[in-house]
Parts: sequence; C-alpha cells; structure tokens
Amino acid sequence: MAGTDRRNEFEFKRAPAVILCEPQLGENIGMVARAMSNFGLWDLRIVNPRDGWPSEKAVATAARAKVVIEGAKIFESAEAAVADLHVVFATTARPRDMFIPVIGPDEAAGQARAEISKGNGVGFLFGRERWGLNNDEVALATAIVTLPIEPAFASLNIAQAVLVIAYEWRRAAPDGPLPFAGPDAPAATGGQVNALSEHLVKALDGSGFFVSPDKRCSMVLAIKTMIHGAGFNAQQVRTLRGAIASLAGHHRRDEDLK
Amino acid sequence: MAGTDRRNEFEFKRAPAVILCEPQLGENIGMVARAMSNFGLWDLRIVNPRDGWPSEKAVATAARAKVVIEGAKIFESAEAAVADLHVVFATTARPRDMFIPVIGPDEAAGQARAEISKGNGVGFLFGRERWGLNNDEVALATAIVTLPIEPAFASLNIAQAVLVIAYEWRRAAPDGPLPFAGPDAPAATGGQVNALSEHLVKALDGSGFFVSPDKRCSMVLAIKTMIHGAGFNAQQVRTLRGAIASLAGHHRRDEDLK
Repeated sequence: MAGTDRRNEFEFKRAPAVILCEPQLGENIGMVARAMSNFGLWDLRIVNPRDGWPSEKAVATAARAKVVIEGAKIFESAEAAVADLHVVFATTARPRDMFIPVIGPDEAAGQARAEISKGNGVGFLFGRERWGLNNDEVALATAIVTLPIEPAFASLNIAQAVLVIAYEWRRAAPDGPLPFAGPDAPAATGGQVNALSEHLVKALDGSGFFVSPDKRCSMVLAIKTMIHGAGFNAQQVRTLRGAIASLAGHHRRDEDLK
Repeated sequence: MAGTDRRNEFEFKRAPAVILCEPQLGENIGMVARAMSNFGLWDLRIVNPRDGWPSEKAVATAARAKVVIEGAKIFESAEAAVADLHVVFATTARPRDMFIPVIGPDEAAGQARAEISKGNGVGFLFGRERWGLNNDEVALATAIVTLPIEPAFASLNIAQAVLVIAYEWRRAAPDGPLPFAGPDAPAATGGQVNALSEHLVKALDGSGFFVSPDKRCSMVLAIKTMIHGAGFNAQQVRTLRGAIASLAGHHRRDEDLK
C-alpha cells in the first residue's frame, strides 16, 4: 500500500520498546525498524547483533525508518536491555514448560497501553531467526505473547512478528487510529428516497413495465423495499433520479419515432 | 518466531481470496503466499503479473507455502478475478474521492467471517507495489480497508498488508485461535497460601527479622497481603515453602556455629 505522506513528521509518543535478542541479519533489523515505524514504535534495542553494529545493511533496508536504526541501543544481555522496563512480554511460537501466562497480541497490546498510560516502561522480546528466545529470556517476561498462527505454517520472520505486535499496539490507540475516514456524504432523507422510488414507479408505468395489473402492487412494494434498503446517500439519489429521467425521456423519444 | 510443526497438515477451510492486481515482483508474490499460509488463507488470485506466470522467484520465496503459489489463479482483469465473489474489500492507504465506506482490518475480518459463514465468497483486493489500486478497481468493492498506520511511514509492502489482513481473519476465528495455551497449573488454595505466609512469618520470628515489636503487626499484615496478592500457583507455593525452610535451617545452622 503506497501512500507515505512525506509532509508528516513522526511523533515520538511514549510507546513500548522492541528488543531483538541476537539477531543475525542486518536486513532483518532494517525490516523490523520499518515495521515499527509503520505503527508508531521507535524504541529499538538490540542484544548482541551477530554481525556487529552499526550495520549498513540495516540502514539500507530500513529506508525512511533509518531514524529508528540510528536511535537503536545495543546491549550485552536481555537482562540489561529490559532493566529499566516495568512490564516485559516474550514473543514465541513454541510452548514452554514454564509457569507463565500465554496471551495473544491483542491482549498484550491492551495491557501495554494500560501500563504506558500509568507511566510504566513496556518491552517486547523477540528471539533469534533460527530458534527464538531462550527460556532464560522468556523468564524475564510477565507473559508469553504468541500469534494465532496456522500450525502447519508457523514460520514467521522477525519483521513480520514485529509488524503484527506493532499493528496491535497502534490498533489499541484510544483515538481511532485509521488515517482517513469514509466520505462525509449527507445521508438521503426518507422523503428523498421516497421521491426516488415514486419517480421510478411512475417512469415504469410510462414504459409499460407492469404488464400484469394484478401483480403491480407487489412489484411496486418490492421496488420500494429495494430502494429504501440500498442505503443511497443524497448525491446518489440525485444521480439515480437523473438516470431515470434520462431513460424515461429516451423511452419517450423511442415512442415518438414510431 | 521459529516453530513450524511439519507434522501438521494444512486445512483448506473456506476463507477469503487474496487478489493481487498487477504485482511486479515474483518475490513479493511469494512473500504474500507465506503471509497467507501463516494465517490460514490459500485462495490466491493474480491479475496480470508483470513478469509472467508461473514464476520461479515466487515459488522460491514462498518456501513451504508453495502450495498456495501452485494453486494461484491468473486473471486478465480485477473484474474477472472477483466475478464469483459476493463481497469484495479494497485495501488502500490513500483516501479516495468516492462514496465508499472506510473500515479497519478488524471490522473487515468480522464482516468476512459473517459472509463466509453464510456461504458467500469474499475477496480482498491489493494494488500494485508502486501506486496501489486504480479507482476502477476500488469501485468493485463494498468497502475500503485501510490500516491504522503512522502517516509519516505509510509505506507498507504488499506482503505486509496481506499479513495484517490475514492475521485479522485468523484472529476473528470463533474457536480461540492461539496455537497453544498457558500452563494448566493448579491454582493454590487459600489454605495453602495462608500456610505459606504463616510459615514465612514464623521463620522471620526465628531469624529476628521483627526488631521493633510494636511494628510487627503491621509488617505481618504487609507480608500476608503481598503473598496473597502475588497469585502463586500450588507448585510455586511448594517451591517457596522449601526455600523458606532451607533459609530458616541455614540460619539455624549459623546460630549453632556461634
């Protein structure tokens, strides 16, 4: 979906941290930064990036989200990366034999919103490309977050997992987060819709549509029901009345030619 | 998040179609197939793929989701691709000057579930990498679906847009879609928790923790409140009682050595 508005400035609102534990590829870190920025996250923390830091590949892949890459903080352990946070979620696709609740991204986002609004720091831990988080890292969390994924295709790359979590964070925003709304079209009044259906019925009377007089009543009722049920707005009612007038006039011209 | 269970067979349950209008890169089509399969979608329809079809790059990128690529149907127009569908959603990041409602992926997924359960066909239109859907294509839809995206970073690739839609479809499943649940740990009874807090208080009495007798009452109350509020399960209560016994015994041994 293309549509970045380059005039918009990114707002660094308080938001959860994304903590990547020992990511391998700079490209993945760049894609994570893009996914974060798409949905308003910016606090990226990286534990022991395998190929070192800074990473040209991460910057190149991040594209316009390089502000997230440039602000990333590097840590030597997951413990250090979460030290200032009050609530931590561990993302994993595998069940663990641990006493820790398992919730979905929607519930986690709701909890994250509540904690952030109390002034608490929140973070989401993401594991290595190959095998995810260690149990020692999961133990740092108050809950496991897992995605409602198809078991036969449970392989999701880090950036996709971050995208879903970030999307849920944004969706949980209290201020109606869609970037634009539908048309502000004035609804048609009952009178306008009624005039439309009467216009149509009159035109159909003129064109000889009702061939069987004893069925006219039920057909008129069906037409009225259909038109009132269609939910046309005022502009659409005007368009349809113009179309009916045009067709009825055309019909009359056809008659004149006979 | 690593964790595909290769023993699981993919179930082709009735689900919405994903319709890509004139996608450019085979890699993107492959990534779309992966995102679809992650969340239980499999009906891929492609309108005029720029680089022809079949596409080796699409198969290579799809990895285990090549079953989705191999089943993809090719069409010459969006009209043809949606001809058998009853409800169509158009995904776009740009507002259109058209009389069409705008909804989020969650609402669209709910509507899609309702239509599919009535036996109706549902599809989601996705536009070109460069400029999205044409207005003629949007006009085929009953609603625009847009993502709650950060306006300054609205650029989302097709596979990511598909991922969010597919995730919402799966999340809206009526049967609680998380692939695994939290531990089925027996909760501790009030009696077990009370015994724990009394055990701790007794041990602390023995260790000389309550140095100021007039504050003992309020400190005991604070300890009981803390222990009852922690939500320990039965196993955790046993672990803590063992730890207290060990510490109290250690303390007694220290005393013995004096």
